[in-house]
Amino acid sequence: MKPFNQKLFQVCDKKNNRLCIGLDIDNRKLDNNSLSYMEGFIKDIVDATIDICPVYKINFAFYERLGSKGFDILYKINEYIDKRSVTIADSKRGDIGNSSKYYAEAIFNTLDYDSITVSPYMGEDSISPFCQYKDKGVFVLCLTSNPGSANFQNKIIDNEKLYIHVAKLATQMNINNNLGLVIGATKTDKMKEVKESSGSLPWLMPGVGFQGGSLEDSINISSLNNSCGIINVSRGIIYAGNGSIKDIRLAAEGYTNQIRKLL
Amino acid sequence: MKPFNQKLFQVCDKKNNRLCIGLDIDNRKLDNNSLSYMEGFIKDIVDATIDICPVYKINFAFYERLGSKGFDILYKINEYIDKRSVTIADSKRGDIGNSSKYYAEAIFNTLDYDSITVSPYMGEDSISPFCQYKDKGVFVLCLTSNPGSANFQNKIIDNEKLYIHVAKLATQMNINNNLGLVIGATKTDKMKEVKESSGSLPWLMPGVGFQGGSLEDSINISSLNNSCGIINVSRGIIYAGNGSIKDIRLAAEGYTNQIRKLL
Repeated sequence: MKPFNQKLFQVCDKKNNRLCIGLDIDNRKLDNNSLSYMEGFIKDIVDATIDICPVYKINFAFYERLGSKGFDILYKINEYIDKRSVTIADSKRGDIGNSSKYYAEAIFNTLDYDSITVSPYMGEDSISPFCQYKDKGVFVLCLTSNPGSANFQNKIIDNEKLYIHVAKLATQMNINNNLGLVIGATKTDKMKEVKESSGSLPWLMPGVGFQGGSLEDSINISSLNNSCGIINVSRGIIYAGNGSIKDIRLAAEGYTNQIRKLL
Repeated sequence: MKPFNQKLFQVCDKKNNRLCIGLDIDNRKLDNNSLSYMEGFIKDIVDATIDICPVYKINFAFYERLGSKGFDILYKINEYIDKRSVTIADSKRGDIGNSSKYYAEAIFNTLDYDSITVSPYMGEDSISPFCQYKDKGVFVLCLTSNPGSANFQNKIIDNEKLYIHVAKLATQMNINNNLGLVIGATKTDKMKEVKESSGSLPWLMPGVGFQGGSLEDSINISSLNNSCGIINVSRGIIYAGNGSIKDIRLAAEGYTNQIRKLL
């Protein structure tokens, strides 16, 4: 069984890209609000981009809003991608060990996603049940791109920021080569410090595009230590131009070209 | 519109109880594994206890494992309880503001639960979208009952533990009188310190029962400042005796009697 991080690096190499398209689709913002239209639209985005896009991130909040029907769509998106690209269940789960075990079953068995985002607040035993699935990936929230990251993540504990403690714990837990970190692309000034504490852990990097993060710094710094940073773009692609599939393809190509120049 | 905390205190007073039954049901552990049996069993537990039980906590991990069918059961449980008791969606959500807004819609509109548990790691803007629903409650993870709480929550920032910073932020954000904290009942030695920083915020307290937390200390300390602590018991009730509804009722009565003696 190939460890997740190895699979991730290979699919990125194969497609010569680090782009992750965030499928944050709100059916109320589409021309047609029906869920079948929404599902078709998502499949069209995948069809139009999967030859160049190695990773898709599915933000569960947008689908849970639709109740059990949204959960069905979550299942169908992953099934449609069908291991041609890596899928990230962006669900930010995390609970005591026994409950995390059930969340891992939900995401990795029932929905069969390739990886998940998890919250570290409850500590090691809330993360470890996810890591037992060697071929599945676990991206731990570390230094996020939102303003609220200042409330706790930036605080100093024993001379180091909280996010450095999180990076170190994740690095130490990475015995199955399947852990990664979520690092906001807006946090350029702090990335090198995190890199020094996170070895070859891959980074999932939201914040390029609408939030204004630097693509160049994100790619350059995340690539140190023979590692790789996955650049997530959601609104900057799915709402590109007039929102047509053609404009979405063009936006995905635009980001891909920028990324390839930096590799 | 009555603020959530007021509603919570009233239903606890009316039932003269602080018990929260945790409906952590795994269909594979029941006599019959079918989901219809599971749903019926949960309704039987509610029927057998709702006259004395003011709060039910539904651990989403156990239901998400079942995919969209699990999401349907989540909906049906809350619908069945039908505001006769307070429901807590124990889903530990938390994301950047825009995504948290969608999670709030999922839990408070689509599923119509009365309250939710959220993770504070991403900071204020990840919590505030939930607080906008004045009649709905938001229990912020603060000091949890699991071993991993030592990894980050116990660390000292500016002379105070991280959990104290979380308690203070939640207290400061409580302008709609609908915020609360999750405080592990196993953390007796730290409760007074949290109480001093959390005013009249209600506490949701897991850890009595299997995890060995003290019921007496939990009730006594959480009641200070004219507040109230909700004592969650999951396995200690739903797996009581031979697992029959009769034994579940007896266990719920047992905890209720112990709690009433302390009020």
